Amino acid sequence: MKLLRVGPAGAERPALLDRDGVLRDLSGLVTDIDGTLLADAAALASVAEAEADGSLPSLDPDLRVGPPLARIGKIVCIGLNYHDHAAETGAQAPSEPVVFMKAPDTVVGPDDTVLVPRGSTKTDWEVELAVVIGRELRYAASHEEALAAVAGYAVAHDVSEREFQIERGGQWDKGKNCETFNPLGPWLVTADEVADPQRLRLRLWVNGELRQDGSTADQIFSVAEVVRYLSHFMTLYPGDVINTGTPAGVALGQPEPKPYLRGGDVVELAIDGLGAQRQTLKQA
Amino acid sequence: MKLLRVGPAGAERPALLDRDGVLRDLSGLVTDIDGTLLADAAALASVAEAEADGSLPSLDPDLRVGPPLARIGKIVCIGLNYHDHAAETGAQAPSEPVVFMKAPDTVVGPDDTVLVPRGSTKTDWEVELAVVIGRELRYAASHEEALAAVAGYAVAHDVSEREFQIERGGQWDKGKNCETFNPLGPWLVTADEVADPQRLRLRLWVNGELRQDGSTADQIFSVAEVVRYLSHFMTLYPGDVINTGTPAGVALGQPEPKPYLRGGDVVELAIDGLGAQRQTLKQA
Repeated sequence: MKLLRVGPAGAERPALLDRDGVLRDLSGLVTDIDGTLLADAAALASVAEAEADGSLPSLDPDLRVGPPLARIGKIVCIGLNYHDHAAETGAQAPSEPVVFMKAPDTVVGPDDTVLVPRGSTKTDWEVELAVVIGRELRYAASHEEALAAVAGYAVAHDVSEREFQIERGGQWDKGKNCETFNPLGPWLVTADEVADPQRLRLRLWVNGELRQDGSTADQIFSVAEVVRYLSHFMTLYPGDVINTGTPAGVALGQPEPKPYLRGGDVVELAIDGLGAQRQTLKQA
Repeated sequence: MKLLRVGPAGAERPALLDRDGVLRDLSGLVTDIDGTLLADAAALASVAEAEADGSLPSLDPDLRVGPPLARIGKIVCIGLNYHDHAAETGAQAPSEPVVFMKAPDTVVGPDDTVLVPRGSTKTDWEVELAVVIGRELRYAASHEEALAAVAGYAVAHDVSEREFQIERGGQWDKGKNCETFNPLGPWLVTADEVADPQRLRLRLWVNGELRQDGSTADQIFSVAEVVRYLSHFMTLYPGDVINTGTPAGVALGQPEPKPYLRGGDVVELAIDGLGAQRQTLKQA
């Protein structure tokens, strides 16, 4: 299923994009799309049944699309997780996953405005496969156990300010948590519809120019390994999100002068089967 | 006021410790102690009025004490923020605040069990002054503006796994987000009752032995500066928490063999005016 949330920011309603591409209202069936729903197999089954029997009311297709997940608990991010991206930043491929965090309050809808922070000269883009957790997970013993905790997938934009991240006194989080720095969506695609999370093409364009064109096949640590690994350092809960890293092509990896983002720039992102985003940058 | 939350984990009710030390029930007056309440001056005034007129029902003083804040948005932590602690870890005093993050799901009550993660040999203690935000804050222009966004203060225990934090491939967050790694409370003491946040004594004992004995006077970056600074890198929201760093005396700073925590150890923490915590460690 393609689950999403539509309507004004902060007042989105749960919805579904059905197999015919029609937007359907889920608000009569579920309260919201959040960790509680994702952990509730019976509720998800009733949504699937309602999609199949055509009983869901349709919605105005022009409604704003919000983030596809409410009440996100935490966002865990994996750094340098593509061979080509590690190479372009001059870093060695890490021997185990590099972990940092974004606050859930950085999440906006897939087509919402992204703010260039005041004082920023190095705002950068990163298309990423986001993994959404649907089951509590501690100390997973296998990749199978880890994948069983994955509710679905989404497109994430891990917007990053490189000076704040790297040149301002240690720990990347400082350049990862600016307001609007995590567009998410449009859809949360349930895991049963993603045949192989390691065969997804990710692309990102800036002002129409293709800048990133990678595949999750190039990930150093697979989705299953990332989820298994993280569960040994923290408990994963339904409604948590993992941004699994970005392929090559970010501004940081370009020759000088690096083409960092400015107000007015337009970034488009897409992952095959997971939909597309389009943001206009604006100076904060 | 001393606000707190009492009762079984996950089902705490809002309460208040009155000036006579009597535990009072706030559940007839407010839904919970969270960012929504802290941003609502009228609701806080009605709590203060009810405390003053003695109309609040008393509660069983033996109820479990939970974390004093529900629905925490994010926990931002400042590293190496005391001169003596920076020195003991062999680090230079930072030229600007070092920032990392903990997930809100690491928060437990002040006397709850703390879990030593599986595979951990370097679980460490850190007593910290926690700042609780009560007003949305972006790009604060002054220390006054920053302090006006502070709703109150609490004791925090920033439990840390040093191998995970430092020796496992970059970014401290990996050693800061294990389950139960952020005991908070017992009270959220409103800012009006903390005359000077830079004159608070912090202490921590392990198995009865005093290990940390510092003062916020030794902070490299004051509470006002930390809040001001952070608001230029992220938006602060009501219900966010800032752990402002720890003074000297952690296990990491001791000579070998360093006395890291194990199952059965007992850690006690206190900050003058903000109350005390007591946790027993248990192997996960």
